[in-house]
Amino acid sequence: MNLKDYIATIPNYPIEGVMFRDVTPLMGNGEAFKEATRQLAAYAKKVGADVICGPESRGFIFGCPVATELGIGFVPVRKPNKLPREVISAEYSLEYGTNKLEMHKDAIKPGQKVVIIDDLLATGGTVEAVIKMVHELGGEVVGCAFIIDLVDLKGREHLKGYDVFALLEYEGE
Amino acid sequence: MNLKDYIATIPNYPIEGVMFRDVTPLMGNGEAFKEATRQLAAYAKKVGADVICGPESRGFIFGCPVATELGIGFVPVRKPNKLPREVISAEYSLEYGTNKLEMHKDAIKPGQKVVIIDDLLATGGTVEAVIKMVHELGGEVVGCAFIIDLVDLKGREHLKGYDVFALLEYEGE
Repeated sequence: MNLKDYIATIPNYPIEGVMFRDVTPLMGNGEAFKEATRQLAAYAKKVGADVICGPESRGFIFGCPVATELGIGFVPVRKPNKLPREVISAEYSLEYGTNKLEMHKDAIKPGQKVVIIDDLLATGGTVEAVIKMVHELGGEVVGCAFIIDLVDLKGREHLKGYDVFALLEYEGE
Repeated sequence: MNLKDYIATIPNYPIEGVMFRDVTPLMGNGEAFKEATRQLAAYAKKVGADVICGPESRGFIFGCPVATELGIGFVPVRKPNKLPREVISAEYSLEYGTNKLEMHKDAIKPGQKVVIIDDLLATGGTVEAVIKMVHELGGEVVGCAFIIDLVDLKGREHLKGYDVFALLEYEGE
Protein backbone atom coordinates (compact mmCIF):
# COMPACT_ATOMS: atom_id res chain seq x y z
CA MET A 1 0.00 0.00 0.00
CA ASN A 2 1.42 3.37 -1.08
CA LEU A 3 0.00 5.99 1.26
CA LYS A 4 0.86 8.72 -1.28
CA ASP A 5 -2.02 7.40 -3.37
CA TYR A 6 -4.32 8.80 -0.66
CA ILE A 7 -2.93 12.35 -0.55
CA ALA A 8 -4.64 14.94 -2.78
CA THR A 9 -2.71 17.99 -3.96
CA ILE A 10 -4.54 21.31 -4.30
CA PRO A 11 -2.48 24.06 -5.99
CA ASN A 12 -2.71 27.64 -4.66
CA TYR A 13 -4.64 26.76 -1.50
CA PRO A 14 -5.21 28.44 0.91
CA ILE A 15 -3.16 31.18 -0.79
CA GLU A 16 -1.41 31.63 -4.15
CA GLY A 17 1.85 29.71 -4.42
CA VAL A 18 1.07 27.06 -1.80
CA MET A 19 0.66 23.42 -2.87
CA PHE A 20 -1.76 22.15 -0.25
CA ARG A 21 -1.41 18.46 0.65
CA ASP A 22 -4.85 17.22 1.59
CA VAL A 23 -4.94 14.20 3.89
CA THR A 24 -8.74 13.75 3.85
CA PRO A 25 -8.63 10.92 1.25
CA LEU A 26 -6.17 9.05 3.52
CA MET A 27 -8.43 9.28 6.57
CA GLY A 28 -11.43 8.54 4.38
CA ASN A 29 -10.00 5.13 3.47
CA GLY A 30 -10.21 2.63 6.32
CA GLU A 31 -7.15 0.61 5.33
CA ALA A 32 -4.97 3.65 4.67
CA PHE A 33 -6.00 5.37 7.91
CA LYS A 34 -5.33 2.20 9.90
CA GLU A 35 -1.96 1.66 8.24
CA ALA A 36 -0.86 5.28 8.87
CA THR A 37 -1.93 4.89 12.51
CA ARG A 38 -0.05 1.60 12.80
CA GLN A 39 3.18 3.19 11.53
CA LEU A 40 2.87 6.26 13.76
CA ALA A 41 2.04 4.10 16.79
CA ALA A 42 5.05 1.82 16.14
CA TYR A 43 7.26 4.93 16.08
CA ALA A 44 5.74 6.41 19.26
CA LYS A 45 6.17 3.08 21.05
CA LYS A 46 9.78 2.76 19.89
CA VAL A 47 10.76 6.17 21.29
CA GLY A 48 8.95 5.41 24.56
CA ALA A 49 5.98 7.79 24.48
CA ASP A 50 4.03 8.17 27.74
CA VAL A 51 1.60 10.58 26.14
CA ILE A 52 0.70 11.90 22.67
CA CYS A 53 0.30 15.61 22.08
CA GLY A 54 -1.32 17.05 18.95
CA PRO A 55 -2.21 20.52 17.69
CA GLU A 56 -5.72 21.49 16.57
CA SER A 57 -7.19 20.11 14.54
CA ARG A 58 -5.48 17.71 12.13
CA GLY A 59 -3.11 16.73 14.92
CA PHE A 60 -6.21 15.36 16.67
CA ILE A 61 -7.08 13.23 13.65
CA PHE A 62 -3.77 11.38 13.61
CA GLY A 63 -2.71 11.68 17.24
CA CYS A 64 -5.85 10.32 18.92
CA PRO A 65 -5.89 6.93 17.16
CA VAL A 66 -2.21 6.50 18.07
CA ALA A 67 -2.99 7.24 21.74
CA THR A 68 -5.85 4.72 21.94
CA GLU A 69 -3.82 2.13 19.97
CA LEU A 70 -1.05 2.39 22.58
CA GLY A 71 -3.43 2.85 25.53
CA ILE A 72 -1.87 6.18 26.51
CA GLY A 73 -3.34 9.67 26.96
CA PHE A 74 -3.79 12.39 24.37
CA VAL A 75 -3.20 16.08 25.10
CA PRO A 76 -4.89 18.57 22.77
CA VAL A 77 -3.05 21.76 21.81
CA ARG A 78 -5.65 24.33 20.88
CA LYS A 79 -6.16 27.78 19.40
CA PRO A 80 -6.82 30.54 21.97
CA ASN A 81 -9.94 30.47 24.15
CA LYS A 82 -10.94 26.88 23.36
CA LEU A 83 -9.66 25.16 26.50
CA PRO A 84 -11.84 25.74 29.56
CA ARG A 85 -9.29 25.47 32.37
CA GLU A 86 -6.03 27.27 33.21
CA VAL A 87 -3.68 27.34 30.22
CA ILE A 88 -0.16 28.20 29.12
CA SER A 89 0.45 29.58 25.64
CA ALA A 90 3.07 30.00 22.92
CA GLU A 91 3.21 32.03 19.70
CA TYR A 92 4.01 30.36 16.41
CA SER A 93 4.43 31.25 12.76
CA LEU A 94 2.89 29.10 10.05
CA GLU A 95 3.87 28.60 6.43
CA TYR A 96 1.30 31.37 5.82
CA GLY A 97 0.52 33.68 8.80
CA THR A 98 0.99 33.64 12.58
CA ASN A 99 -1.02 32.45 15.54
CA LYS A 100 -1.03 31.38 19.18
CA LEU A 101 -1.53 27.95 20.75
CA GLU A 102 -2.61 26.92 24.24
CA MET A 103 -2.37 23.85 26.47
CA HIS A 104 -3.96 23.08 29.80
CA LYS A 105 -1.49 23.81 32.60
CA ASP A 106 -2.01 20.33 34.09
CA ALA A 107 -1.88 18.48 30.75
CA ILE A 108 1.65 17.09 31.10
CA LYS A 109 3.18 15.71 34.27
CA PRO A 110 6.86 16.52 34.95
CA GLY A 111 9.11 13.86 33.45
CA GLN A 112 6.53 12.49 31.02
CA LYS A 113 7.85 11.45 27.62
CA VAL A 114 5.87 13.19 24.90
CA VAL A 115 5.49 12.42 21.20
CA ILE A 116 4.04 15.29 19.18
CA ILE A 117 1.90 14.23 16.21
CA ASP A 118 0.58 16.40 13.38
CA ASP A 119 -0.49 15.78 9.79
CA LEU A 120 2.22 17.85 8.17
CA LEU A 121 5.70 19.24 8.85
CA ALA A 122 6.17 22.55 7.01
CA THR A 123 8.51 25.13 8.57
CA GLY A 124 8.13 23.49 11.97
CA GLY A 125 6.77 26.61 13.69
CA THR A 126 3.72 24.88 15.13
CA VAL A 127 5.78 22.04 16.57
CA GLU A 128 8.35 24.46 18.02
CA ALA A 129 5.53 26.17 19.92
CA VAL A 130 4.26 22.82 21.22
CA ILE A 131 7.79 21.78 22.27
CA LYS A 132 8.18 25.06 24.19
CA MET A 133 4.96 24.42 26.11
CA VAL A 134 5.78 20.76 26.83
CA HIS A 135 9.13 21.88 28.30
CA GLU A 136 7.44 24.62 30.34
CA LEU A 137 5.30 21.89 31.93
CA GLY A 138 8.36 19.73 32.65
CA GLY A 139 7.77 17.13 29.94
CA GLU A 140 10.40 15.63 27.64
CA VAL A 141 9.82 15.61 23.86
CA VAL A 142 11.09 12.20 22.71
CA GLY A 143 9.82 12.49 19.13
CA CYS A 144 7.81 14.39 16.52
CA ALA A 145 5.82 12.38 13.98
CA PHE A 146 4.00 13.48 10.85
CA ILE A 147 2.14 12.01 7.92
CA ILE A 148 3.93 14.39 5.52
CA ASP A 149 7.27 16.21 5.55
CA LEU A 150 7.47 19.10 3.04
CA VAL A 151 11.24 18.77 2.86
CA ASP A 152 11.88 22.02 0.94
CA LEU A 153 10.58 24.01 3.90
CA LYS A 154 13.37 22.57 6.09
CA GLY A 155 11.21 21.86 9.13
CA ARG A 156 13.76 19.29 10.32
CA GLU A 157 16.40 22.04 10.62
CA HIS A 158 14.11 24.00 12.93
CA LEU A 159 13.61 20.86 15.00
CA LYS A 160 17.35 20.08 15.29
CA GLY A 161 18.06 18.00 18.37
CA TYR A 162 14.66 16.31 18.22
CA ASP A 163 13.83 12.97 16.66
CA VAL A 164 11.64 13.53 13.59
CA PHE A 165 9.66 10.84 11.78
CA ALA A 166 7.46 11.26 8.70
CA LEU A 167 5.56 8.65 6.69
CA LEU A 168 5.80 10.59 3.41
CA GLU A 169 8.09 13.21 1.92
CA TYR A 170 7.29 15.78 -0.76
CA GLU A 171 9.85 18.01 -2.43
CA GLY A 172 10.42 20.38 -5.34
CA GLU A 173 6.77 20.79 -6.25
CA MET B 1 -14.07 2.16 35.61
CA ASN B 2 -16.49 5.07 35.93
CA LEU B 3 -15.86 7.37 32.98
CA LYS B 4 -17.61 10.23 34.82
CA ASP B 5 -14.53 10.41 37.06
CA TYR B 6 -12.69 11.75 34.01
CA ILE B 7 -15.10 14.57 33.11
CA ALA B 8 -14.35 18.00 34.59
CA THR B 9 -17.18 20.49 35.08
CA ILE B 10 -16.48 24.20 34.57
CA PRO B 11 -19.35 26.49 35.63
CA ASN B 12 -20.19 29.55 33.50
CA TYR B 13 -17.96 28.57 30.57
CA PRO B 14 -17.84 29.73 27.78
CA ILE B 15 -20.70 32.01 28.88
CA GLU B 16 -22.63 32.71 32.11
CA GLY B 17 -25.14 29.99 32.96
CA VAL B 18 -23.49 27.15 31.01
CA MET B 19 -22.02 24.18 32.89
CA PHE B 20 -19.23 23.14 30.55
CA ARG B 21 -18.40 19.42 30.56
CA ASP B 22 -14.70 19.13 29.81
CA VAL B 23 -13.58 15.82 28.28
CA THR B 24 -9.85 16.59 28.29
CA PRO B 25 -9.18 14.56 31.49
CA LEU B 26 -10.85 11.57 29.82
CA MET B 27 -8.66 11.74 26.72
CA GLY B 28 -5.65 12.50 28.90
CA ASN B 29 -6.01 9.14 30.66
CA GLY B 30 -4.92 6.22 28.46
CA GLU B 31 -7.25 3.65 30.02
CA ALA B 32 -10.29 5.92 30.04
CA PHE B 33 -9.71 7.07 26.45
CA LYS B 34 -9.28 3.46 25.29
CA GLU B 35 -12.40 2.32 27.16
CA ALA B 36 -14.52 5.16 25.73
CA THR B 37 -13.24 4.27 22.25
CA ARG B 38 -14.02 0.60 22.81
CA GLN B 39 -17.62 1.35 23.79
CA LEU B 40 -18.19 3.75 20.89
CA ALA B 41 -16.63 1.29 18.44
CA ALA B 42 -18.80 -1.58 19.71
CA TYR B 43 -21.87 0.61 19.12
CA ALA B 44 -20.76 1.69 15.62
CA LYS B 45 -20.07 -1.92 14.70
CA LYS B 46 -23.44 -3.06 16.02
CA VAL B 47 -25.36 -0.54 13.91
CA GLY B 48 -23.30 -1.46 10.84
CA ALA B 49 -21.20 1.65 10.23
CA ASP B 50 -19.34 1.84 6.90
CA VAL B 51 -17.85 5.19 7.80
CA ILE B 52 -17.53 7.52 10.82
CA CYS B 53 -18.32 11.20 10.49
CA GLY B 54 -17.33 13.75 13.13
CA PRO B 55 -17.61 17.53 13.49
CA GLU B 56 -14.63 19.79 14.22
CA SER B 57 -12.87 19.43 16.47
CA ARG B 58 -13.84 17.26 19.45
CA GLY B 59 -15.68 14.96 17.05
CA PHE B 60 -12.25 14.24 15.55
CA ILE B 61 -10.88 13.28 18.96
CA PHE B 62 -13.46 10.55 19.57
CA GLY B 63 -14.43 9.65 16.00
CA CYS B 64 -10.96 8.97 14.58
CA PRO B 65 -9.94 6.27 17.10
CA VAL B 66 -13.27 4.52 16.45
CA ALA B 67 -12.61 4.57 12.69
CA THR B 68 -9.12 3.09 12.99
CA GLU B 69 -10.32 0.55 15.59
CA LEU B 70 -12.93 -0.69 13.10
CA GLY B 71 -10.71 -0.24 10.02
CA ILE B 72 -13.19 2.12 8.35
CA GLY B 73 -12.85 5.67 7.03
CA PHE B 74 -13.35 8.95 8.87
CA VAL B 75 -15.02 11.99 7.31
CA PRO B 76 -14.26 15.36 8.92
CA VAL B 77 -17.04 17.95 9.17
CA ARG B 78 -15.38 21.35 9.39
CA LYS B 79 -16.01 25.02 9.98
CA PRO B 80 -16.15 27.15 6.80
CA ASN B 81 -13.08 27.52 4.58
CA LYS B 82 -11.06 24.73 6.16
CA LEU B 83 -11.62 22.00 3.57
CA PRO B 84 -9.59 22.50 0.38
CA ARG B 85 -11.85 20.80 -2.19
CA GLU B 86 -15.47 21.25 -3.31
CA VAL B 87 -17.84 21.30 -0.33
CA ILE B 88 -21.49 21.27 0.66
CA SER B 89 -22.62 23.18 3.74
CA ALA B 90 -25.34 23.42 6.39
CA GLU B 91 -26.23 26.00 9.03
CA TYR B 92 -26.61 24.98 12.66
CA SER B 93 -27.41 26.54 16.01
CA LEU B 94 -25.39 25.69 19.09
CA GLU B 95 -26.30 25.77 22.77
CA TYR B 96 -24.73 29.26 22.60
CA GLY B 97 -24.57 30.94 19.15
CA THR B 98 -24.89 29.84 15.50
CA ASN B 99 -22.48 28.66 12.82
CA LYS B 100 -22.01 26.82 9.53
CA LEU B 101 -20.42 23.45 8.81
CA GLU B 102 -18.94 22.00 5.62
CA MET B 103 -18.15 18.56 4.19
CA HIS B 104 -16.27 17.56 1.07
CA LYS B 105 -18.74 16.80 -1.72
CA ASP B 106 -17.12 13.40 -2.37
CA ALA B 107 -16.80 12.46 1.32
CA ILE B 108 -19.71 10.01 1.46
CA LYS B 109 -20.63 7.50 -1.25
CA PRO B 110 -24.35 6.96 -1.96
CA GLY B 111 -25.72 4.17 0.22
CA GLN B 112 -22.93 4.28 2.80
CA LYS B 113 -23.99 3.71 6.39
CA VAL B 114 -22.76 6.57 8.55
CA VAL B 115 -22.29 6.85 12.31
CA ILE B 116 -21.87 10.43 13.54
CA ILE B 117 -19.62 10.83 16.58
CA ASP B 118 -19.15 13.90 18.77
CA ASP B 119 -18.09 14.51 22.35
CA LEU B 120 -21.36 15.97 23.54
CA LEU B 121 -25.08 16.01 22.68
CA ALA B 122 -26.59 19.35 23.71
CA THR B 123 -29.57 20.63 21.67
CA GLY B 124 -28.57 18.43 18.74
CA GLY B 125 -28.17 21.31 16.30
CA THR B 126 -24.69 20.33 15.19
CA VAL B 127 -25.70 16.74 14.53
CA GLU B 128 -28.85 17.81 12.66
CA ALA B 129 -26.62 19.82 10.29
CA VAL B 130 -24.34 16.82 9.79
CA ILE B 131 -27.33 14.52 9.14
CA LYS B 132 -28.64 16.96 6.51
CA MET B 133 -25.31 16.92 4.67
CA VAL B 134 -24.93 13.13 4.88
CA HIS B 135 -28.40 12.78 3.32
CA GLU B 136 -27.57 15.34 0.63
CA LEU B 137 -24.63 13.10 -0.36
CA GLY B 138 -26.83 9.99 -0.43
CA GLY B 139 -25.58 8.43 2.79
CA GLU B 140 -27.70 6.78 5.48
CA VAL B 141 -27.30 7.84 9.13
CA VAL B 142 -27.49 4.58 11.11
CA GLY B 143 -26.51 6.09 14.46
CA CYS B 144 -25.29 9.07 16.48
CA ALA B 145 -22.87 8.44 19.34
CA PHE B 146 -21.61 10.75 22.05
CA ILE B 147 -19.50 10.67 25.17
CA ILE B 148 -22.02 12.88 27.00
CA ASP B 149 -25.77 13.53 26.66
CA LEU B 150 -26.94 16.71 28.43
CA VAL B 151 -30.41 15.29 28.80
CA ASP B 152 -32.11 18.53 29.96
CA LEU B 153 -31.37 20.08 26.56
CA LYS B 154 -33.48 17.38 24.88
CA GLY B 155 -31.11 16.66 22.01
CA ARG B 156 -32.70 13.23 21.55
CA GLU B 157 -36.04 14.88 20.71
CA HIS B 158 -34.38 16.84 17.92
CA LEU B 159 -32.86 13.62 16.64
CA LYS B 160 -36.14 11.67 16.70
CA GLY B 161 -36.07 8.80 14.23
CA TYR B 162 -32.33 8.34 14.64
CA ASP B 163 -30.58 5.89 16.90
CA VAL B 164 -28.76 7.81 19.66
CA PHE B 165 -26.13 6.36 21.97
CA ALA B 166 -24.29 8.15 24.80
CA LEU B 167 -21.76 6.81 27.28
CA LEU B 168 -22.71 9.30 30.02
CA GLU B 169 -25.75 11.36 30.93
CA TYR B 170 -25.88 14.60 32.90
CA GLU B 171 -29.05 16.27 34.08
CA GLY B 172 -30.43 18.97 36.38
CA GLU B 173 -27.17 20.69 37.10
